[in-house]
Amino acid sequence: MIPDTTPAELEQALADAAAAAPALGASEPAVRAGWIRAVADALDAAADELVPIAMRESSLPEPRLRGEVARSSGQLRMFAEVLEEGSLLEVVIDTADAEAKPVPRPDLRRVLVPLGPVLVFAASNFPFAFSVCGGDTASALAAGCPVIVKAHPGHPELSVKTAEVMIEALRVAGSPAGTLGLIQGFDVGVTALKDPRITAAGFTGSVPAGKALHEIAVTRPEPIPFYGELGSLNPVFVTQAAVDARGKDIATGYVGSFTLGVGQFCTKPGLLFLPAGHGLQEQLTEAAGGVAEAPMLNDRIKEGFSSGLDRLQKVEGVRVWASAGATLLQTTVTELLARRDEILEECFGPVSIVVEYDGLDELRSAVDAFEGNLTATLHAESSDTELAGELLPLLTARAGRVLWNGWPTGVAVSWAQHHGGPFPSTVGSIHTSVGVTAARRFQRPVAYQDTPDAVLPAVLKDSNPAGISRRVNGSVTTGEVSR
Amino acid sequence: MIPDTTPAELEQALADAAAAAPALGASEPAVRAGWIRAVADALDAAADELVPIAMRESSLPEPRLRGEVARSSGQLRMFAEVLEEGSLLEVVIDTADAEAKPVPRPDLRRVLVPLGPVLVFAASNFPFAFSVCGGDTASALAAGCPVIVKAHPGHPELSVKTAEVMIEALRVAGSPAGTLGLIQGFDVGVTALKDPRITAAGFTGSVPAGKALHEIAVTRPEPIPFYGELGSLNPVFVTQAAVDARGKDIATGYVGSFTLGVGQFCTKPGLLFLPAGHGLQEQLTEAAGGVAEAPMLNDRIKEGFSSGLDRLQKVEGVRVWASAGATLLQTTVTELLARRDEILEECFGPVSIVVEYDGLDELRSAVDAFEGNLTATLHAESSDTELAGELLPLLTARAGRVLWNGWPTGVAVSWAQHHGGPFPSTVGSIHTSVGVTAARRFQRPVAYQDTPDAVLPAVLKDSNPAGISRRVNGSVTTGEVSR
Repeated sequence: MIPDTTPAELEQALADAAAAAPALGASEPAVRAGWIRAVADALDAAADELVPIAMRESSLPEPRLRGEVARSSGQLRMFAEVLEEGSLLEVVIDTADAEAKPVPRPDLRRVLVPLGPVLVFAASNFPFAFSVCGGDTASALAAGCPVIVKAHPGHPELSVKTAEVMIEALRVAGSPAGTLGLIQGFDVGVTALKDPRITAAGFTGSVPAGKALHEIAVTRPEPIPFYGELGSLNPVFVTQAAVDARGKDIATGYVGSFTLGVGQFCTKPGLLFLPAGHGLQEQLTEAAGGVAEAPMLNDRIKEGFSSGLDRLQKVEGVRVWASAGATLLQTTVTELLARRDEILEECFGPVSIVVEYDGLDELRSAVDAFEGNLTATLHAESSDTELAGELLPLLTARAGRVLWNGWPTGVAVSWAQHHGGPFPSTVGSIHTSVGVTAARRFQRPVAYQDTPDAVLPAVLKDSNPAGISRRVNGSVTTGEVSR
Repeated sequence: MIPDTTPAELEQALADAAAAAPALGASEPAVRAGWIRAVADALDAAADELVPIAMRESSLPEPRLRGEVARSSGQLRMFAEVLEEGSLLEVVIDTADAEAKPVPRPDLRRVLVPLGPVLVFAASNFPFAFSVCGGDTASALAAGCPVIVKAHPGHPELSVKTAEVMIEALRVAGSPAGTLGLIQGFDVGVTALKDPRITAAGFTGSVPAGKALHEIAVTRPEPIPFYGELGSLNPVFVTQAAVDARGKDIATGYVGSFTLGVGQFCTKPGLLFLPAGHGLQEQLTEAAGGVAEAPMLNDRIKEGFSSGLDRLQKVEGVRVWASAGATLLQTTVTELLARRDEILEECFGPVSIVVEYDGLDELRSAVDAFEGNLTATLHAESSDTELAGELLPLLTARAGRVLWNGWPTGVAVSWAQHHGGPFPSTVGSIHTSVGVTAARRFQRPVAYQDTPDAVLPAVLKDSNPAGISRRVNGSVTTGEVSR
């Protein structure tokens, strides 16, 4: 049992983070990239020590956890690369233009600078990829922000060990002391969130907790941005043509996706919309029944799943198709619309609902029933191009990632990724928690006007000493500036 | 007297905006650019009609108001250009990579899409550039969002006429009905801000009003982003070397800047830090005394200025150097630090404070005394390079724009511009209200995964039909994608 962080320890963590901020923020991008790579290497090197702890604390299997370590270190290396390439700083240079109308234009050079210490509330379901060494931490460090992680109580020892590995790697690499800190305890996290030294917060967790923390962050005397990933139903819509062409594959793929990681993914497909008369009940039921039972992350989540399942099964119009292994429920669009709020409440765990629609009007009504989601998926064939052309804009309006003939579990880490959708799936839908642009959440622009080369930050100097990518007078270039 | 918008009219405006959102959002960027250019042309063509109304309602002089019209139409054209060039959409394409580790990577294509109807609270001090046809409206339209402007009561007739000109131009150009709407009345604005159809809000005005509206926006059942520009002191720091080299020019430039537009700029320099023994008192006092008195925007602002001035003049340690024309006050860093909250309270209007510092330690303490500002300025010479190297990071930490040997009034509209600073100068310091990136406030990313070319939005198609600028596998290009 790891005790809560004491008030004195919290004060120390906050003071250390605040003290580290100027030096970390002023570090050359290439130097910071080196520190981040050192963390990535240290994580990989410590996998043999960390993974067994994670297995014991989260009940997740070894291959999955080893994959998570690789994902986390790979993510850190991606940020290091983009820091060196320069795009993470979004440098924009407009040289002076004495002829500009209606008034002459000064020399302006814009760069993104770090906000300051960031508080990260770790998630339970990805002990590496959305926890101490996860995407929020990686993107904040890349931005140049010190990070204080509020550990998730689901894997306390892993959190401590992971932080130790990272802090030691940062120390050896030469990053300022206080670059990374770890705190334990719910109330401690709330106290930290209210502290004026904290300049932004990231959160992955439940809707009620996320909403409560969001309100604290935005109603502080000095409001700060709060990026919360709260929950998502991730509906999947299947056309008749797709059922005809590959119904059995869809059934198998669906069950595999909603039971992946014991259904404990924020991108779990919570509903599968099939045309009435799809003929896949047997296939789906067999696949769900064949899923091996596996322990959930912890007792609290298991209890939440049990009570959520009880609740769902009692909703009028919801029938049970399979209840061993994974739970598969069934309803119709008519019944869903009649009891929308009851049926469209997320149940975290290995359960999903097949919803049968009768004709395209019902399919459209089903799409309309949704609020914001992280993802929305369409399974269709090339003969559906017209229908897809109609449905994709509707899915786009309701989700941050739109998938075609795939499954939403699995979130690739890349430049183009977007993990975040309209409320309530996230608070702050204009930002992502995965992918290169996640760093933007922790950066603010500063524009330097008519400032001599000698005193400009290196990344803004005419000579572009690090050869980074910059937008100069409208065009992206790695070249020098003449003025 | 223009009456408040009625509840029925407000409902119509909201319904029209919501109805326009899908078509406006789906419009091809080049088509939208055409609509925006039509608005710019119509504004320029209507200047002879609009400027006299603005003169009557705001008391501002004709050249300034004509400049504002040109600035506003130029700003619209800038957004149209960047829409056509494509960077406004931030398209990022990562093609599939079957060899990616730890797992194969799907094809992902990210694009920024509009949030939906935006509510803009117009400002009083720029009847064009920060009002109905101002930067918030321009950037939201460029993003593809319908806009409802809550008119500022300081120029009600101008607001109506401007909206008429813009709405007619949009109609003739073919933009969806409901692209732009106008509402009147404080309570009406609050009601609109709470409406679920409004997806974001922009505001320029006072700190108390901005804070109150911000709290409403972020504590709604569905919180929405609120971008508020609230107020700023814009300190100017002058080194001894700069005084020695061009003290008289600094004195003249300073008085010109803080009295520009009768001191009614959010970027007005509210304090000038001079080394003790600067010898510029006579010069400053003469320049301030020589400023012609001019009417303020309206009676409410005039009363606010009078009472603010009374308050400031009574603060212990604050002396009056000039009180005819413009008001020039004087104090010292020691006195400022002793009564910081009283002296560092913004007073909107033609007043500024000269603060004398005794040595570099006092100068550093003075910088440390500030919270967030839109701008911070340093006047220095090349012999000050070391000192500037120390001060610039401190100014960067406290401001969104850092100026060298210039004056903060005048905000160029360009790619590199940033108009926004740490709280309390803005709520949402990671965003700007001026410049190309202002549109980002009203856009959210969507990533399409493995979606066939036939159903992708045109801007994401392999062939890049409009030849826009896109980041493909890490590099910015206007070319095609091969997959």
